[in-house]
Amino acid sequence: MPKLRVHNLSVSIDGYAAGPDQSVDNPLGVGGEQLHEWVFKTSYGLEMLGLDSRGAGTTLDDEILRAGDVNIGATIMGRNMFGPIRDEWPDESWTGWWGDEPPYHHQTFVLTHHPRPSVEMAGGTVFHFVTDGIEAALDRAFDAAGGQDVRLGGGPSTIQQYLRAGLVDEMHIAIVPVLFGNGERLLDNMAGSGLDVVSFAASPSVMHVHLGQSSGP
Amino acid sequence: MPKLRVHNLSVSIDGYAAGPDQSVDNPLGVGGEQLHEWVFKTSYGLEMLGLDSRGAGTTLDDEILRAGDVNIGATIMGRNMFGPIRDEWPDESWTGWWGDEPPYHHQTFVLTHHPRPSVEMAGGTVFHFVTDGIEAALDRAFDAAGGQDVRLGGGPSTIQQYLRAGLVDEMHIAIVPVLFGNGERLLDNMAGSGLDVVSFAASPSVMHVHLGQSSGP
Repeated sequence: MPKLRVHNLSVSIDGYAAGPDQSVDNPLGVGGEQLHEWVFKTSYGLEMLGLDSRGAGTTLDDEILRAGDVNIGATIMGRNMFGPIRDEWPDESWTGWWGDEPPYHHQTFVLTHHPRPSVEMAGGTVFHFVTDGIEAALDRAFDAAGGQDVRLGGGPSTIQQYLRAGLVDEMHIAIVPVLFGNGERLLDNMAGSGLDVVSFAASPSVMHVHLGQSSGP
Repeated sequence: MPKLRVHNLSVSIDGYAAGPDQSVDNPLGVGGEQLHEWVFKTSYGLEMLGLDSRGAGTTLDDEILRAGDVNIGATIMGRNMFGPIRDEWPDESWTGWWGDEPPYHHQTFVLTHHPRPSVEMAGGTVFHFVTDGIEAALDRAFDAAGGQDVRLGGGPSTIQQYLRAGLVDEMHIAIVPVLFGNGERLLDNMAGSGLDVVSFAASPSVMHVHLGQSSGP
């Protein structure tokens, strides 16, 4: 059975997936970039930025990061991950944070309350805007994935919705040794998620925790 | 300057220092004992239980656990850590969970709303019952510690009170790879604590994080 998977989700030790005082200019919140520093020390992270990755070597962080993109056929994300625009779309000019060729290369479903035609990008990414809820988005994503798994991106509130509905099959989080004090909490009300810790491994930068459904299929 | 220190405080990856559904029969909550398994794999933990510790060796967990008792001259704890009794003391028969000789061996201040005479135990532990608040308890503990540091025990709500007041100088937490879903949250509203991550180190069992005041004295 294809799965819904969350990968490489960085959280502070107090459970926040973004820093306090998020804004358009500061989409990760104050200090939020600290959550992602470990990614950009890996060869995979450096490649994403188009930088020289030859010195980064093969590390646990790099291996785990790469595993998140294996056997993924479609992506779901919340509107806040797609862009900073709230309420109605003023026009169709915003096509994501990622430029002309987003890193998805498959059908990508954006949850929103405001309909909009699909947008075809270079490199195979097609953004679809889903207005009829998380389960409808999941059905469409599984269809689009053609037997592969579906990756659930952020933000935290989108992941929370799928967690509360018990729809996430696997989740990998990277606990980063920073303290935010407040922000957008990820691991809240997890009782309904059905998830349990499957394994964990620490690198010099973060603690990786893999969660899975405690009752198998 | 003597410090107020928290040590060896185990929390789940979703931030709980006890499992759900705490009760007198289940003081750590359902599954709460999983938070403390790492302690009882160390030689120090086995010694605490009076068990043979020779096979446990010297590990990071053991070293960090032992460091929590170094240079401590007094202890503060909440009433729930002292015992299961709520409201008025029915009599003076309850003298803690630890038998005739508690492991403190110094003056120990129990926060409560209900006055009670001090109790002198074997081995040097004296329990004092403080009814005039966390700052009064801290003043008395610093006096009793005679220049050494004061250790702040649990439970989570007591630690939360000192954290919110910005009174904790150092805190060590052990993040345990279990997910509780709900329970008593420790790392909440940490913005007023003044604490920041100083260092972290993972063992095969847990991720140790040391926090300290970000602005020095």
